[in-house]
Amino acid sequence: MPGIPESLEINQFLLCKTPHEWIACAKDNLDILLIDHANCEKKAASTALNLMYRYVHYPDLLLQLSKLAREELRHFEQVVSILARRNIAYEQISSARYAGELRKNVRTHEPGRLIDILIVSAIVEARSCERFEGLMHVLDAELADFYGSLLKSEARHFKVYLDFAKTINETMQGDSDTKQLESFDSRVSYFLEEDKRLIQSQDTVFRFHSGRPE
Amino acid sequence: MPGIPESLEINQFLLCKTPHEWIACAKDNLDILLIDHANCEKKAASTALNLMYRYVHYPDLLLQLSKLAREELRHFEQVVSILARRNIAYEQISSARYAGELRKNVRTHEPGRLIDILIVSAIVEARSCERFEGLMHVLDAELADFYGSLLKSEARHFKVYLDFAKTINETMQGDSDTKQLESFDSRVSYFLEEDKRLIQSQDTVFRFHSGRPE
Repeated sequence: MPGIPESLEINQFLLCKTPHEWIACAKDNLDILLIDHANCEKKAASTALNLMYRYVHYPDLLLQLSKLAREELRHFEQVVSILARRNIAYEQISSARYAGELRKNVRTHEPGRLIDILIVSAIVEARSCERFEGLMHVLDAELADFYGSLLKSEARHFKVYLDFAKTINETMQGDSDTKQLESFDSRVSYFLEEDKRLIQSQDTVFRFHSGRPE
Repeated sequence: MPGIPESLEINQFLLCKTPHEWIACAKDNLDILLIDHANCEKKAASTALNLMYRYVHYPDLLLQLSKLAREELRHFEQVVSILARRNIAYEQISSARYAGELRKNVRTHEPGRLIDILIVSAIVEARSCERFEGLMHVLDAELADFYGSLLKSEARHFKVYLDFAKTINETMQGDSDTKQLESFDSRVSYFLEEDKRLIQSQDTVFRFHSGRPE
């Protein structure tokens, strides 16, 4: 994606690109792609809202999360309108294994829990952004435009989550505690490896965040 | 509230006004009022989002709920900013009994469940609107302006919820089934009586939707 700075940054962050087979499968499963995309936007808003319940002591985080949730909801509305225009029925479908698997190893004690959730959220946003870019080049004009328009805001969400994870880690540990800062980097690396594993390994169902199609 | 058409409609709908004692108590408990107001906006966004998970087959409802959730989140951000400007720490506080009690008698089978949740949501919005109006006249200029600005959108939310409840009831039962339509009105009356009971009876804790202070 030369020329789109957001994507360069995302591609440097993630450890692998989406396999070509997934992109080909997406073209053949537009209905599922769009329905699951609507679900992902809704889920992203819920994740932000859940954090807003638990972490009321960080006003800056609250404001950013709320703004981010509003943007995800706006995208949800756009996908629902596309579904309606294309006469695609919005059916209930199961979630991908992706987000659940990523979250399995979130630490259970604070502040590790919050930091890990923010890292995982950053990775999910980054992966979504990378997939939007991949899809842009192969889908019809309406969807290419739409996914292009989402790139920037999802890239911004990635940064919001990662910057807050860093800030909270530093506030909690003290800037001078090099050991803890290394530990932050190792958490990011750990979850990035998990993302890579889930994206590259075979998956039984096709979804927006699924792995290599069977 | 002469001259504000939204409030006239709300006051005709609700069975009672907020007791003067609650308004007086609110003036003396601004911190709790604002923190609980922030919680209520967050809760309103969650309620809309929860409905968006369950009722994916109604595209118009999905779009309206998502827009409504975005507005609630915008209000949440405004309250959080007011808290920050006033150096009020956003502490975790318990919820009022109000919404939980109202929801206790929501029917458990569809479509009754959805219709009842929409009716309860309409009543909560209407009650919030009525309280904003009561508060407008007794609080400082910044808060009076703020609560005045919220009146219109909360009144609109009240209508969105009630209109959807009516539409879904009619779609499910058929327009000609007078018995079922009467039953809809009786559900509205039932929940309005519950609202009246909760607002007029004594409450042990002061909250945005609490009853008569002890």
